Amino acid sequence: MKIAILSPVAWRTPPRHYGPWEQVASNLTEGLVKEGLDVTLFATADSVTNAKLEAVISTGYEDDLQQDPKVVECLHISNLAERAAEFDLIHNHFDFLPLTYSRLISTPMVTTIHGFSSQKIIPVYKKYNSTCPYISISYADRSPELKYIANIYHGIDNANFTFNEHPDDYLLYFGRIHPDKGTAESIEIAKQSKHRLLIAGIIQDKNYFIEKVEPFLNDEIVFIGQAGPEKRNILLRNALALLHPINFQEPFGLSVAEAMLCGTPVIAFNKGSMPELIEDEKTGFLVNSVQEAVEAVSSINTINRHDCYAHASEKFSLKKMVKDYIAVYHKIFRG
Amino acid sequence: MKIAILSPVAWRTPPRHYGPWEQVASNLTEGLVKEGLDVTLFATADSVTNAKLEAVISTGYEDDLQQDPKVVECLHISNLAERAAEFDLIHNHFDFLPLTYSRLISTPMVTTIHGFSSQKIIPVYKKYNSTCPYISISYADRSPELKYIANIYHGIDNANFTFNEHPDDYLLYFGRIHPDKGTAESIEIAKQSKHRLLIAGIIQDKNYFIEKVEPFLNDEIVFIGQAGPEKRNILLRNALALLHPINFQEPFGLSVAEAMLCGTPVIAFNKGSMPELIEDEKTGFLVNSVQEAVEAVSSINTINRHDCYAHASEKFSLKKMVKDYIAVYHKIFRG
Repeated sequence: MKIAILSPVAWRTPPRHYGPWEQVASNLTEGLVKEGLDVTLFATADSVTNAKLEAVISTGYEDDLQQDPKVVECLHISNLAERAAEFDLIHNHFDFLPLTYSRLISTPMVTTIHGFSSQKIIPVYKKYNSTCPYISISYADRSPELKYIANIYHGIDNANFTFNEHPDDYLLYFGRIHPDKGTAESIEIAKQSKHRLLIAGIIQDKNYFIEKVEPFLNDEIVFIGQAGPEKRNILLRNALALLHPINFQEPFGLSVAEAMLCGTPVIAFNKGSMPELIEDEKTGFLVNSVQEAVEAVSSINTINRHDCYAHASEKFSLKKMVKDYIAVYHKIFRG
Repeated sequence: MKIAILSPVAWRTPPRHYGPWEQVASNLTEGLVKEGLDVTLFATADSVTNAKLEAVISTGYEDDLQQDPKVVECLHISNLAERAAEFDLIHNHFDFLPLTYSRLISTPMVTTIHGFSSQKIIPVYKKYNSTCPYISISYADRSPELKYIANIYHGIDNANFTFNEHPDDYLLYFGRIHPDKGTAESIEIAKQSKHRLLIAGIIQDKNYFIEKVEPFLNDEIVFIGQAGPEKRNILLRNALALLHPINFQEPFGLSVAEAMLCGTPVIAFNKGSMPELIEDEKTGFLVNSVQEAVEAVSSINTINRHDCYAHASEKFSLKKMVKDYIAVYHKIFRG
């Protein structure tokens, strides 16, 4: 079974820092290789993989802002489409644009929908609803207008995260600095609960950072910028809790699963996929306000960090994800 | 010979006001129909044509800003690509994206390159250089890195423009309000030459309009907004001269050819395609500064408006353009 994995080209696969779609495409690719599958990864040329790497784009368009994303995207996608006959299956992690090439090639294409940036993109998915199987990354992220062949949660490589039973005393915010992700709410929760807060992530919304984050930074509220894999593990495993007070229907929260894999409970606003990721009062708390989050922080010692680890390693293991995807591939071949 | 014309979907084809690519695609489509060819126009559903119309997009994304251009574009292009087998030839007026579908279909695709929005898009054209024939719209707009099957100037429908030997006393600016097009320079030329100036066009650069145009408007410098076909004819034919002091290498200037077809000479900065469009001192003046343009205005009576008309109707007639394109189609069929 020759599989082509089509990764996005915003960032390297895996990303150096931020880049969740590329991260998941990488996790899956490496997992499939370990299972002995013949995998070719279509990604930027600076990507790192044990699969065969095929690239026509040297660097991601977010890593090198001199590039025109539209140009880079269509060169990348068409390179795979033109070589489709070399593969038995194309697994698309690259949003909707590749779908529009799918009826011009005979290799089947399965698509993991990593999220809908807007309702405006749904018409493309609807057009290919009967010919391209879709996989959701959480039930919360399913569109009622689309048919799905499976729901598969993201799987995380245990090797990158270490369990820690004895955390430090800080709270952690880990994600893009953006109103969606609730950086400002995290600061408020930390202040009210009188805990130190470390803030890690790329600044995606500069005005938000300047207005809602920067003025509140001090010895107790510390912005540490973006964190690559090693720093990420250290930050997550040593945190008392991960704060995740999101203001949008998040399709999946990679850092939520990663935190739990380190034994770190998560206090999240009860939105989007959060009830699917967190077992309330067992691996963290699902709350609806800053006030409730502050109360959750004070109850954080009621959470057994072993439970967090057990939950994450059962539900969000790389092995499980890879097994689930291989099952879907076989289902597609059986027609 | 079954021809599919792929028009852009920024605007209706033909556009109600601005939209030069859609305008040319429309001119060609209607001209081909008149020559008895079997033509299908792929454009927005509100387009107007005597060809068969195929549309999956109701309105242009510039006419209805609620739409996501990327979504609209790929649905539009893939609709034609998926039906390619119904046609003997696809004539692409839609920039570079359709090229990336061309190797997945067996119908040949010829592309009129209406201009390079940036050097960054050239890699896509380079990739398809050996498989997709390109047509330039002026020699000035040719990229040295690409091969061309022909150069074909835009052809204008005589029916929309009426010759006028006895113009009024105003100068005309006709184009997007944008630094590239020299709106500010036109105002300066009009002021120094003590002539009335009418300014017609869509405001593409709002800051430029607010800073460089609006403060200078008065009884003599008049902004009249965008002009559809009828108003355009009246404005062009009654002008003493068209001012075209461009600040970029313009690939073609539709309004330049249209003005001359009305008998109106053009005073243009000597850039891009201007020397190919204007016969210096016979159908207008090629100048290099505002000062030279002011001198040209004072010499405008040395231009015979019949010469302007004769030049434009020979070089930029719809009939000639259609004949030239049909010759290219045959050349492609002969291989």
